[in-house]
Amino acid sequence: MKISTLSIGDELICGQLTDTNAGTIASVLLAEGLRIQRHLTVGDNESDIIGALSDLGRVSDAVIVTGGLGPTADDMTSRAAARATGRRLVINDEARNHVRLMSSKLENLIFCPLSDKQSMIPTKSALIPNPGGTACGFHLMHNGCFMFFMPGVPSEMIVMLRNTVMPFIMERVPHKRVIRTASLNLFGPCEAEIDELLLGIASPERGLTLGICVTFPWMRVTLRAEADNNDAATDLLLPAVRSVRDRLKEYCFSSGDISMDDVVSELFRDRCLTISLAESCSGGLIAKRLTDIPGSSAYFCEGTVTYSNVAKTRLLGVPVELLNSFGAVSSECASAMAKGIRLVSGSDIGLAVTGIAGPDGGSEDKPVGTVFISFAAPDGCWTKRFQFNGNRNDIRTLTAWTALDWMRRYLLKRE
Amino acid sequence: MKISTLSIGDELICGQLTDTNAGTIASVLLAEGLRIQRHLTVGDNESDIIGALSDLGRVSDAVIVTGGLGPTADDMTSRAAARATGRRLVINDEARNHVRLMSSKLENLIFCPLSDKQSMIPTKSALIPNPGGTACGFHLMHNGCFMFFMPGVPSEMIVMLRNTVMPFIMERVPHKRVIRTASLNLFGPCEAEIDELLLGIASPERGLTLGICVTFPWMRVTLRAEADNNDAATDLLLPAVRSVRDRLKEYCFSSGDISMDDVVSELFRDRCLTISLAESCSGGLIAKRLTDIPGSSAYFCEGTVTYSNVAKTRLLGVPVELLNSFGAVSSECASAMAKGIRLVSGSDIGLAVTGIAGPDGGSEDKPVGTVFISFAAPDGCWTKRFQFNGNRNDIRTLTAWTALDWMRRYLLKRE
Repeated sequence: MKISTLSIGDELICGQLTDTNAGTIASVLLAEGLRIQRHLTVGDNESDIIGALSDLGRVSDAVIVTGGLGPTADDMTSRAAARATGRRLVINDEARNHVRLMSSKLENLIFCPLSDKQSMIPTKSALIPNPGGTACGFHLMHNGCFMFFMPGVPSEMIVMLRNTVMPFIMERVPHKRVIRTASLNLFGPCEAEIDELLLGIASPERGLTLGICVTFPWMRVTLRAEADNNDAATDLLLPAVRSVRDRLKEYCFSSGDISMDDVVSELFRDRCLTISLAESCSGGLIAKRLTDIPGSSAYFCEGTVTYSNVAKTRLLGVPVELLNSFGAVSSECASAMAKGIRLVSGSDIGLAVTGIAGPDGGSEDKPVGTVFISFAAPDGCWTKRFQFNGNRNDIRTLTAWTALDWMRRYLLKRE
Repeated sequence: MKISTLSIGDELICGQLTDTNAGTIASVLLAEGLRIQRHLTVGDNESDIIGALSDLGRVSDAVIVTGGLGPTADDMTSRAAARATGRRLVINDEARNHVRLMSSKLENLIFCPLSDKQSMIPTKSALIPNPGGTACGFHLMHNGCFMFFMPGVPSEMIVMLRNTVMPFIMERVPHKRVIRTASLNLFGPCEAEIDELLLGIASPERGLTLGICVTFPWMRVTLRAEADNNDAATDLLLPAVRSVRDRLKEYCFSSGDISMDDVVSELFRDRCLTISLAESCSGGLIAKRLTDIPGSSAYFCEGTVTYSNVAKTRLLGVPVELLNSFGAVSSECASAMAKGIRLVSGSDIGLAVTGIAGPDGGSEDKPVGTVFISFAAPDGCWTKRFQFNGNRNDIRTLTAWTALDWMRRYLLKRE
């Protein structure tokens, strides 16, 4: 089954908003062994939408469209869909009732005026219910191609995709080649190094492919096995996954959608250890990431963002003389901060970061990107100096990743 | 001039990575009054790339392609470009010298094996220099359509686009209609409310359009004026911008690419005030955002992430009896935290946040999403209760935005 996606919106085609729906749809389809062939984006322009629907309709068995179903005047997907498929646009009673019901619910929170525009649906279409918002979706068949229309709001779209669109598509997929995928996430080496490490694992002629995807500052290796049935695909995939794991060793921090934050969080819980943070140049980013995880209060005691020297002394007990002799960005200060936060918080582990995120503040000795990370634990205190490259945001991101990866490696060794 | 973009990559079409290049290219073109008509994405598959190049080439005067020029086996854009345009793929000496030079530079940092693959360029093409990476780009003319090929790494692509592709395109744009755009950013009301507030400002027949783009949790209103010359476009645009500003009033926090964080940061500097934070459920997110801005040490004294009650008492002096009587998520605790951090840090302003980000921890009285924000300043202490909706991430994001917006409104009133 050839499937295409179409995202509609001026804000997408003009680069004001990055489209995430196409990626979400692709992931959901991939999990069922289906692949997007083409993804197209056009603006809120009737003739562009009509052209896109005709072109994609010609080369696809199904087109999944998102965006342009809102209440405002610049949303014109329904009208374009009607014109492109030779239908009339009429008030749909079910859609109208839904708009009214949802609007009355939402009124408690924010005032949203009622709009009949969202009740106008092309004739000879079936509704796609939207439990999360006012805009119903719809689907229709035109010249042998199924076309699905959903609003662009990601949280509404995903529910409609899962509840209505996917079951409809899966019923109509003819003979299915089974696709199974697995992905491993890694932090540390560069793409070319990974490519060399993994040489010879892929075997496209047997239906086993391997892709490396760089998502600064980490990477994902995805294995994809295609076979006639589930067992054959699994037999192809699993040994390859094992080989990749063996070769990547400790670079690999997780598989699938498990983030570095999830891994570190799980390890803290499992080892029954607690942590407190003393952050300077990372400005709360590590605390934010550790507390992104629900239930983080089990291991996260407290965080401090000690930007000023006064705060480093008052909150962490870093001696004024040490700051005067070595400076706030120094190995000595980092380890005093780590030991200090461990002591005052009573946590098992104290982690401290001090450095120069830029763009200003660098010197010849300590250029922008110089970062000291210190790790105080029951069995010792370690401090390392790093030199990161990039802009302020890159340096802060690399600092947080490196600190989290260090925690991960430490916790892994403590059974 | 009809311009299309093509992004190539399995990780894009499979939804593992979100494409940002198309948006970047669109923004750069828009600034020059040019608009992308279609944006297409396909995977690293030779026949899909050839099909995409032929289709886009047929309907466009220029196609800007990104991705698939890397050193690894799954990158096959050069070969597909050669086949699609009837050219041979040959070693280009200039490209080879560049790959060698860049590889030797990069070797200091990370080991990247040398690859001749990146020196293979289709015949009858001109190189697009890449000062930031090993992969040169190239451009060629096929059946009256200019085709530009660049690597997918965003930081490399943008330089190549600005230095080579844009000057090449701008020299060949025939009669130019001038497009001027302006955008205003707002936080608070819902899309339909904004739409109603701004009714009648757009006037497409005169070349003035208005778009609303929702980027949770804020929105952007973009005005676009198209006219024969710069003066006419400006005359069309400026009064409309003033009207939008008048009607949005304090909802509007900035224009263009200026973020909420930038605005708050600038206000703190301008008013010569300092701030310290006591965060509970936002877990360092507000500190992270305030310190994202270079030079934030001028106004940001310290941040604390006081997850545990012990930390609230030890670091902020919140009385144990208060925590026992009212609980950590209470108006009383929030204001004690705000006053506490203001006092111990010696900052002008103390901001505190305590709430339930979920998914667990809610009760009938205080469901998930209940958040107290307290603001202690020289002229008083104010505490408000909010009820936010959404998942853990939404609630934390809304908490940070609401706190920052509160600071902004407070600072605006203090001349």
